[in-house]
Amino acid sequence: MLKLHGFSVSNYYNMVKLALLEKGIAFEAVDVHGGQREDFLRISPRGKVPVLQTEQGYINETSVILEYIEETQAGKALLPSDPQTRAYVRSLMREIELYIELPARACYLEAFFGGKVDPAIKAKSKEDLDLGIASLKRHGKFSPYLAGEQLSLADLYFLYSLDLACVVMGKLFATDVLADFPQAKALFQLLGQNPNVQKVAADKDAEMEKFLEMARGGKK
Amino acid sequence: MLKLHGFSVSNYYNMVKLALLEKGIAFEAVDVHGGQREDFLRISPRGKVPVLQTEQGYINETSVILEYIEETQAGKALLPSDPQTRAYVRSLMREIELYIELPARACYLEAFFGGKVDPAIKAKSKEDLDLGIASLKRHGKFSPYLAGEQLSLADLYFLYSLDLACVVMGKLFATDVLADFPQAKALFQLLGQNPNVQKVAADKDAEMEKFLEMARGGKK
Repeated sequence: MLKLHGFSVSNYYNMVKLALLEKGIAFEAVDVHGGQREDFLRISPRGKVPVLQTEQGYINETSVILEYIEETQAGKALLPSDPQTRAYVRSLMREIELYIELPARACYLEAFFGGKVDPAIKAKSKEDLDLGIASLKRHGKFSPYLAGEQLSLADLYFLYSLDLACVVMGKLFATDVLADFPQAKALFQLLGQNPNVQKVAADKDAEMEKFLEMARGGKK
Repeated sequence: MLKLHGFSVSNYYNMVKLALLEKGIAFEAVDVHGGQREDFLRISPRGKVPVLQTEQGYINETSVILEYIEETQAGKALLPSDPQTRAYVRSLMREIELYIELPARACYLEAFFGGKVDPAIKAKSKEDLDLGIASLKRHGKFSPYLAGEQLSLADLYFLYSLDLACVVMGKLFATDVLADFPQAKALFQLLGQNPNVQKVAADKDAEMEKFLEMARGGKK
């Protein structure tokens, strides 16, 4: 059986978890946090979660795990079969990761963990987030899912990256992203009705207090 | 015929160009620089090069273009057919992009274009680059190619991202990455003997002066 290493507050972990739930693939959850411990680096060379353990070994990097699951597991397809449309979905995944998730992540310490981020880094993040969100508005279909009529891997990135970026934009830059982005607001609402999304959210909520305590302790 | 939009100094453009040359796929090069011009944003929503133009439309994001070419074009395979091994190659691609290319890129202004990067951003880049390079040492096979005996997409990222990261580490942080990384040095030498790599390098050199003049003019 596939084993998914990570923890329920990690947004990247939750992308993979939701993919597995949507496909109806049984998996075993292995509770672990990222870090530079030698034993963990043996299964995740940059020390990040999630990691997927298969019969053949370990796979790291969320986008790579999602592709592997798509290639090897049965259940609902989360990538279209036509190469051009697949490329469209993948480009949305990549745009959200590179241009929204990463600049927002550079500000998580201040937005979520009670720390301070250097003003130069915040200014760069704000500039990148503005461009990244403009790109998403330009490229997303929102009809009603991000890449069209069907739920796809792009929606997982949307759901678990844009939400945190919205918090960063609100808390640090007094910017209400969704006020000016009704199609994103509608997609969050639609996804929020999905029972598997609700399960992932409930697991996250249950773990949140413990996680915040640990994160604040380590990062202050 | 496929059209590849971009320019010969762009390292991401050169990854796609080398993949096409290695596969022996004819393509038309369309000389264009990235930016936030409305006409360009219609084909590349975040304003980046390269963009691949197919019979069906446009594809942006290098990793997505490389997957599309792999899925649709004949010629030498640059991804293994076994899913677990494919995942290994893809994770190396992603690790180089996220943990080496991106932190190095945050310093390009100072390393290549005569500008100044904020010390906080440089410090973060150095910290990330140290971890990213350690991860590459840990995860790469270098036997002799990055992911094993065959040239793969991971080598394209290695070739065109690590080289620039080495310049950043040398110029800004007085760190000789390759001195402590003989297997990377050997792989650069091996790849440098490849005629297609030599062609890409010659095209880059021919365009370099014009590009640097433009970049310094715009960025100072």
